[in-house]
Amino acid sequence: MKPGIKPSYIKSSYMQRCICIVAYFLVGSLCLIKCYASDVPKVERWGRYEITLKGPVTGNPYTDVTLKATFSKGTDKVTVNGFYDGDGVYKIRFMPAKTGVWNYVTASNLAALKNKTGSFQCVSAAGDNHGMVRVWDTYNFKYDDGKVFYPFGTTAYAWTHQGEELEQLTLKSLKNAPFNKVRMCVFPKYYNYVTNEPELYPYEKISSAKGANGRVKFVWDFKKFNPAFFRHLENRIDDLNALGIQADVIIFHPYDKGHWGFDSMGKANDLFYIKYLIARLSSFRNVWWSMANEFDYIKSKPREVWDTYSAAVVNNDPYRHLCSIHNGSVYFDNWKSYFTHVSIQNGAPVEDFGRAVLLRDVYFKPVIYDEVCYEGNLPLRWGNLTGQQMTEAIWQGIIAGTYVTHGETIKTKGDTIFWAKGGVLKGESPARIAFLKNIMEQGPGPLKLADPWKDNQTAQTDSTYYLIYFGKQTQKDWAFSLPKKNGPPAGTKFKVDIIDTWNMTITPLNEVFETAAPDGYRIYDTHGKKVKLPDNPYMALRIKQVK
Amino acid sequence: MKPGIKPSYIKSSYMQRCICIVAYFLVGSLCLIKCYASDVPKVERWGRYEITLKGPVTGNPYTDVTLKATFSKGTDKVTVNGFYDGDGVYKIRFMPAKTGVWNYVTASNLAALKNKTGSFQCVSAAGDNHGMVRVWDTYNFKYDDGKVFYPFGTTAYAWTHQGEELEQLTLKSLKNAPFNKVRMCVFPKYYNYVTNEPELYPYEKISSAKGANGRVKFVWDFKKFNPAFFRHLENRIDDLNALGIQADVIIFHPYDKGHWGFDSMGKANDLFYIKYLIARLSSFRNVWWSMANEFDYIKSKPREVWDTYSAAVVNNDPYRHLCSIHNGSVYFDNWKSYFTHVSIQNGAPVEDFGRAVLLRDVYFKPVIYDEVCYEGNLPLRWGNLTGQQMTEAIWQGIIAGTYVTHGETIKTKGDTIFWAKGGVLKGESPARIAFLKNIMEQGPGPLKLADPWKDNQTAQTDSTYYLIYFGKQTQKDWAFSLPKKNGPPAGTKFKVDIIDTWNMTITPLNEVFETAAPDGYRIYDTHGKKVKLPDNPYMALRIKQVK
Repeated sequence: MKPGIKPSYIKSSYMQRCICIVAYFLVGSLCLIKCYASDVPKVERWGRYEITLKGPVTGNPYTDVTLKATFSKGTDKVTVNGFYDGDGVYKIRFMPAKTGVWNYVTASNLAALKNKTGSFQCVSAAGDNHGMVRVWDTYNFKYDDGKVFYPFGTTAYAWTHQGEELEQLTLKSLKNAPFNKVRMCVFPKYYNYVTNEPELYPYEKISSAKGANGRVKFVWDFKKFNPAFFRHLENRIDDLNALGIQADVIIFHPYDKGHWGFDSMGKANDLFYIKYLIARLSSFRNVWWSMANEFDYIKSKPREVWDTYSAAVVNNDPYRHLCSIHNGSVYFDNWKSYFTHVSIQNGAPVEDFGRAVLLRDVYFKPVIYDEVCYEGNLPLRWGNLTGQQMTEAIWQGIIAGTYVTHGETIKTKGDTIFWAKGGVLKGESPARIAFLKNIMEQGPGPLKLADPWKDNQTAQTDSTYYLIYFGKQTQKDWAFSLPKKNGPPAGTKFKVDIIDTWNMTITPLNEVFETAAPDGYRIYDTHGKKVKLPDNPYMALRIKQVK
Repeated sequence: MKPGIKPSYIKSSYMQRCICIVAYFLVGSLCLIKCYASDVPKVERWGRYEITLKGPVTGNPYTDVTLKATFSKGTDKVTVNGFYDGDGVYKIRFMPAKTGVWNYVTASNLAALKNKTGSFQCVSAAGDNHGMVRVWDTYNFKYDDGKVFYPFGTTAYAWTHQGEELEQLTLKSLKNAPFNKVRMCVFPKYYNYVTNEPELYPYEKISSAKGANGRVKFVWDFKKFNPAFFRHLENRIDDLNALGIQADVIIFHPYDKGHWGFDSMGKANDLFYIKYLIARLSSFRNVWWSMANEFDYIKSKPREVWDTYSAAVVNNDPYRHLCSIHNGSVYFDNWKSYFTHVSIQNGAPVEDFGRAVLLRDVYFKPVIYDEVCYEGNLPLRWGNLTGQQMTEAIWQGIIAGTYVTHGETIKTKGDTIFWAKGGVLKGESPARIAFLKNIMEQGPGPLKLADPWKDNQTAQTDSTYYLIYFGKQTQKDWAFSLPKKNGPPAGTKFKVDIIDTWNMTITPLNEVFETAAPDGYRIYDTHGKKVKLPDNPYMALRIKQVK
């Protein structure tokens, strides 16, 4: 603009001037929002926001300091516990379930930590972030965003206590495996085949000395945690999350044998530990709580204490992560409200037809057979399933509308066993489990027996999709036959794929089958058509409606 | 004594006089006790004492009059509800659990019925009176007097609604049958094969008229019971008691189809009925409460109402009779405290090995598979088990530490079906059930799997007594082998009986077997001895320690 020349807007009419003023405020506001938005931290929905505060190091901050924060967005308010992370650092973690701006204010018994305020912006989830896994439709699971989750878990109880090299190897194995859930202990494990000391311990050590029997006797301060231990655990849980794997975190277990004493710290210390653990971990979206492995084998904890502990977990967890309790020989009362699902140790229900469904009927919760013995070569009967047996167990569970967790106890010279330490997976079943998982993910939804208690082989999602499993039984052919119960109307057309669950082949048949009206309790093809089957065990059929 | 002659005691010394006075009071007291005892009514322990009072007939005594009595003996106090029995007669019934003199006092909203007092003497039980059946040792049953009760039940849902002739025939059949429990409905049944009208109805009829569809439409006064109906039911329950049979009284059922409307009277009438029924029946020692048959098929009663009804049963029953709820396709929450045991409808768990035990593990209560389909010839799949299948079901249950109820749906021309109407038992299984019952009663106690989840065929009472069942499987021989778990020490001697469960033979072997030290998970004979078996299905072995 040349000097002396009046800019045009000075000559503008009243109306024009008004528009200019509105535009000025509009642009200004947008500018403000933009500036604000770029100032506040951004966290993905179901991600983790962490407040870090500096406070005292004197005394015992674990017991002396209380710390919470309340996060709010409109009428939503969530209060979460903070925790001491060592070296004068106090943290509060929060997982937002809704997008938008969240504000927080802290509360503490210390002036230095209380009434701290701040904000962050929760933005949409991206990539493989689907939120937490939750119970869906009584017997199944879905992520927060609606994606169906079919648990195909494995077991690596002590994998986070093995040092960087082996832990990285485990992560590499998991990356190439089908498993989307890992059962893993917080505390280190002292048991057959796994007696090595971890690099990190969960508590501050007061002393340790070799006893007369040559074994080290540890003395811990159960009122002082070792933050490095928990940070390490958290990193591993985040590593799993990056692989899309749920961490089924086992809070207590019996594999201590008086070595460290983490199984017999007493009730007050147990509850203190639960609160600390949950303050640290509940903002991790891929965490599930497993109250215990083989709770009934922890002889120092009477049965009734598990009500107290389970209630403590639920009451300290504002997000209500999935929570279960896993048995040894005797089940806990899985119907109790703390437990979102049933975590069963028992291989018998998935050894043969007609069994897995029997427990599904009982609890009105998802059933995961979380230990059904392991594919392995140990001399112990819980550790020597063949690959076929392990694979059949997973199929038996799936067709009955339940889920089964894999585990591997193959011991080779100089090698670790995946079941406890992680490392390399050597079994024959993981590839077959990947094959089944793929079939499930291609299908329209979770399965259930179409005619439970009567036909133990025929699973369906609904009358348009069936999966029939024959197990060890071989047969030359299969006459098209579906249960009348929950079945399709006459005149429905289907195509059939022959699945070899062991050799991992799917053979689609060209033929189209058409249902006749029910005859007794079954529905047959109008022309009584049959399917010729290979003379192999472990065959299955996939039967899909065609339009 | 002649006049003028002083009786000798007048001459007696002071000491002698004292003795005489003591003797006088002693004899007098004994005399008083005797007189008193011969005056007050006597009732056996676990028998029934009945107070009968006269009161008003005006208004509606069922709703207008409240009546209770409190029976006391020392610090024991039991309050029971009374009931109106028609024609101005009011009754209160009481079953004493302790011998001695019991006193009572009534309470009522009517002066004519309140503050009535009285006494009776409870004397020891005699004959076949063992008291009530109760849960014992978590999974089993015992009478009050300690005698073990093994439930071998049958089903005759509507047998008390068939008229005198058929009912007497049923009682005759039961007298000659092994069954010690009968599942039976209070309300008449309207269903396939049983659509006849009963002679008596539970309610006062307001009207009945044939509708346009030819069916009679009844209108009842659900606030006025028909005492004759209930007196008849009570007589039948007493008839069963005389035969040593428990009456598993089904309070509600779905077999009405709008015919009488007893399945859909509404919540207030249902609760009114529960209270009346229990006031009448709770003093019958052989009564068990079954909240419903196929509760989930009674579409007029939402699931949550069963909590209210079950609580009403328990709260009105001062004796805490056994109480369960029986399902159709969906189980109720059998863990709830109202239920003393689990009454399951499902044949699948007892069709094959390794299943029945799966539900036994869950509830920590006795499990009775109260409907597992029926031995019969009906075209429906629940009504056409062979005698072999029915017998195997009972054995499968027993070796898993559970119990199975028999039922018969054999229809012959002009005949009734025992399952609903009673009459004559025609099946092949009752004789085999008698055979098994006899084996159980000869044995040292209830069975359980010795090595559950692993060995599904070997039951034991303890390491001195085993029963091994082979089911349909035939085998030439059996190498002496017991599970290591819960097993005998090395050097224990056993004798073996070969049992043909179908042909009902027991063949004792002369040979003595001696256990070696455990080898892996099994215990064998020191010399690896074998037992030769007949080439028949349904064989079993009884293995008893010898000293």
